[in-house]
Amino acid sequence: MASGRQDRRPSGPEHNETADAADIVIRGGTLLTMVEGESPVEDATVLIKGDRITGILQGESPSLRGAELIDAAHGIVMPGLVNAHGHTAMTLFRGYADDLPLREWLFTKIFPAESAILDPDSVYWGTLLGCAEMIASGTTTVSDGYFHQDATAQAFRKAGLRALVAQGVIDFPAPGVPDPKENLKAGRAFLEKWQGISDLIRPGLFCHSLTTCSESTIRGAMRLSEEFASPLQIHLSETEADVEEVLNRTGKRPAAYLESLHLLTERLIGIHAVHLDDDEIALIGRRRTGVVHCPESNMKLASGVARIARMVQAGIRIGLGTDGAASNNDLDLFREMDTAAKLGKVYTLDPMNAGAPMVLNMATVWGAGILGLDKEIGTIAVGKKADLIVVDLRRPHLVPLYHPMSTLVYSANGGDVEHVIVNGKVLMKNRRMTHLDTEEIMGKVREISERIRALA
Amino acid sequence: MASGRQDRRPSGPEHNETADAADIVIRGGTLLTMVEGESPVEDATVLIKGDRITGILQGESPSLRGAELIDAAHGIVMPGLVNAHGHTAMTLFRGYADDLPLREWLFTKIFPAESAILDPDSVYWGTLLGCAEMIASGTTTVSDGYFHQDATAQAFRKAGLRALVAQGVIDFPAPGVPDPKENLKAGRAFLEKWQGISDLIRPGLFCHSLTTCSESTIRGAMRLSEEFASPLQIHLSETEADVEEVLNRTGKRPAAYLESLHLLTERLIGIHAVHLDDDEIALIGRRRTGVVHCPESNMKLASGVARIARMVQAGIRIGLGTDGAASNNDLDLFREMDTAAKLGKVYTLDPMNAGAPMVLNMATVWGAGILGLDKEIGTIAVGKKADLIVVDLRRPHLVPLYHPMSTLVYSANGGDVEHVIVNGKVLMKNRRMTHLDTEEIMGKVREISERIRALA
Repeated sequence: MASGRQDRRPSGPEHNETADAADIVIRGGTLLTMVEGESPVEDATVLIKGDRITGILQGESPSLRGAELIDAAHGIVMPGLVNAHGHTAMTLFRGYADDLPLREWLFTKIFPAESAILDPDSVYWGTLLGCAEMIASGTTTVSDGYFHQDATAQAFRKAGLRALVAQGVIDFPAPGVPDPKENLKAGRAFLEKWQGISDLIRPGLFCHSLTTCSESTIRGAMRLSEEFASPLQIHLSETEADVEEVLNRTGKRPAAYLESLHLLTERLIGIHAVHLDDDEIALIGRRRTGVVHCPESNMKLASGVARIARMVQAGIRIGLGTDGAASNNDLDLFREMDTAAKLGKVYTLDPMNAGAPMVLNMATVWGAGILGLDKEIGTIAVGKKADLIVVDLRRPHLVPLYHPMSTLVYSANGGDVEHVIVNGKVLMKNRRMTHLDTEEIMGKVREISERIRALA
Repeated sequence: MASGRQDRRPSGPEHNETADAADIVIRGGTLLTMVEGESPVEDATVLIKGDRITGILQGESPSLRGAELIDAAHGIVMPGLVNAHGHTAMTLFRGYADDLPLREWLFTKIFPAESAILDPDSVYWGTLLGCAEMIASGTTTVSDGYFHQDATAQAFRKAGLRALVAQGVIDFPAPGVPDPKENLKAGRAFLEKWQGISDLIRPGLFCHSLTTCSESTIRGAMRLSEEFASPLQIHLSETEADVEEVLNRTGKRPAAYLESLHLLTERLIGIHAVHLDDDEIALIGRRRTGVVHCPESNMKLASGVARIARMVQAGIRIGLGTDGAASNNDLDLFREMDTAAKLGKVYTLDPMNAGAPMVLNMATVWGAGILGLDKEIGTIAVGKKADLIVVDLRRPHLVPLYHPMSTLVYSANGGDVEHVIVNGKVLMKNRRMTHLDTEEIMGKVREISERIRALA
């Protein structure tokens, strides 16, 4: 179905002016469709039937006849946010080890704790906690890469979020995959199990990095990703040390090395992409490889600053990610947008860099694009999946309202999200979870955290 | 009165084990006193009588007998935050002009809007809106510098916040002071009017900058500040252009120039302090001049990054400020702490830089220090003024809890503050304002914003 302004007063049989055909009616407020070139729509009504957006009206009040009403009169209606990179279960380690050098953080804290604690049960509850946090802060789609991903996928399914769930692939013993020689076999098993099971959960693979996966492992992961038609994620040039190691081993910088293996394609998603030289940026732009910017994690781990405006100029598609809670330490994409916009400016000493519209695109439609989901989500248009959020403006820090995009990026935070709908299901209404038991989830994670605390 | 661990079980007549003498009892939770060297206290009870903290107990439940109970069982009790630099009424211009070059932002947007809109009425309502936002995000003391400060002081008094309210001094026509030759006279009138009126409101002066105030104006402002024993604030080396201009005019960099005028003293507070060379940092440390770090404003306006860890090493006392909402665009000091910690790390490429304890000190006791208030506020200790907040930990993004300081800096935001007490008065309880009418305030500011919008 087409989308856009011409569809605001639909006339087809499924688009009649009443809400007879709607399960959910979002009424009032300012609609930000995030469709390129469309201005905010005042006093809008969005109709949802099943899992799809079936109508967008302006200045009208259709009769309801049984549809659930979502009141957006004092808010902004916008696409749900896309968290394009995370390790959701790492909420278990939120605040466990901060203000440490990267290697000490990883090798004396995070890796030992993961090794001691991670199992399907802990990953399930840690992921659910992250889901509760992300729903409460307006994220509706997540790209996750970790281990014990069967448990992760079950948690996302339970939460009702849309997710790319990627099984970690690494040439070291890993949680759930003690023998590295089995890493691709474990990947295939996960892909086979979850392929086609759910409209919301899409399985994939996540190679840890060029320094922890051999050429043959990465090639094998790409073959599997092609066979199952899913994206392949990899941490790319997160630190200067990563770049040095690849350069020393292969004589090439990471992106050039991936190009030499014919792996730099639209299927690949490079996470972080902090240390790219100009040639690599141009190359990635030509190959249409996706990139995910994780500014808060890059800041906290002192990895460096990705040149996002330069990448966008080069035609690179960029999403926005929180990374895991252990290096952030929250999963709030509203705060991440604010940081991305401000960090871009101070790093380039250009106050016009990384403007509000650009980072909002990263957190919605562009992020959907690199996950291969932009035909279904990322904007609000008739025919698209019903993944929407409502931000309540009746808060002192969101007053006054001059430009909705500025307010969302520079003033709002996740706690201002009032309602969340994913795939036509209301997951949060008036800030109450409709079906997750947050108390139970927090209690389970507190229990697991006692075991982690006992390690130290 | 002395403070510290030895006072936790006070035995004096005013410290009996029941709460007979208490007006307010804060019971349960983890107490973070922010007294140097003190660890978090579990299951604490804080007693308040009148405007002061009269007892700190551990693991006990005193009988209440009429005292108001503040439930902190699932939270962190800590000193209220100190916003060491702001222009509170600029909430009126929140989001009015973003993503613009600094000079265009100032000269084509902010200055004309200020000139057209600011009067005592608009400043009063804009300030009240900022007060509502700051109370709701855990700030209990504010250092404000702006114009029409009589209205500002009235708004702070109405809100019940503790504030240093500083009358702006600038050698240009300014709101409320059309003739620059009258700027010091207006300053004196403000100091005389508000000196000693209120325990909470302290009047002061705020010289705009070395490039907008002459030597004679700054000297005059310092003489007045000495006469009224209040701090003198000035924007110091916010941008490279500021430094260049002072250097060209005086042959000295800004801090050296102030030193040559004998103005670099404990009474002076240098705001921003982004572009200081090593000699200036050493000099400011020796002179005990206070500095305020405003990382989000410096990022958004692309001014640069202040070297806070270096300054702390040099013995400089640093507070944390949001600056005005037009260049932030919120007044949430929890978010500001997070940004300060992360920006320090990525700017120095050192993940140990600007750790959670340091930025918490900046936002509490150090900030109180540079405002000359650390004998009264900034820590929780028997005998100090009762300025405290309770952060509720029953939120997905604040679970689990390993280290309270990490949780507060890297995970919490202002919306997690549950209760706010200033000078022994409860200003927010269970997230409800006790005496400010937020709806009325937001409505008034929306009306004013329509006039601003009409300018464009």
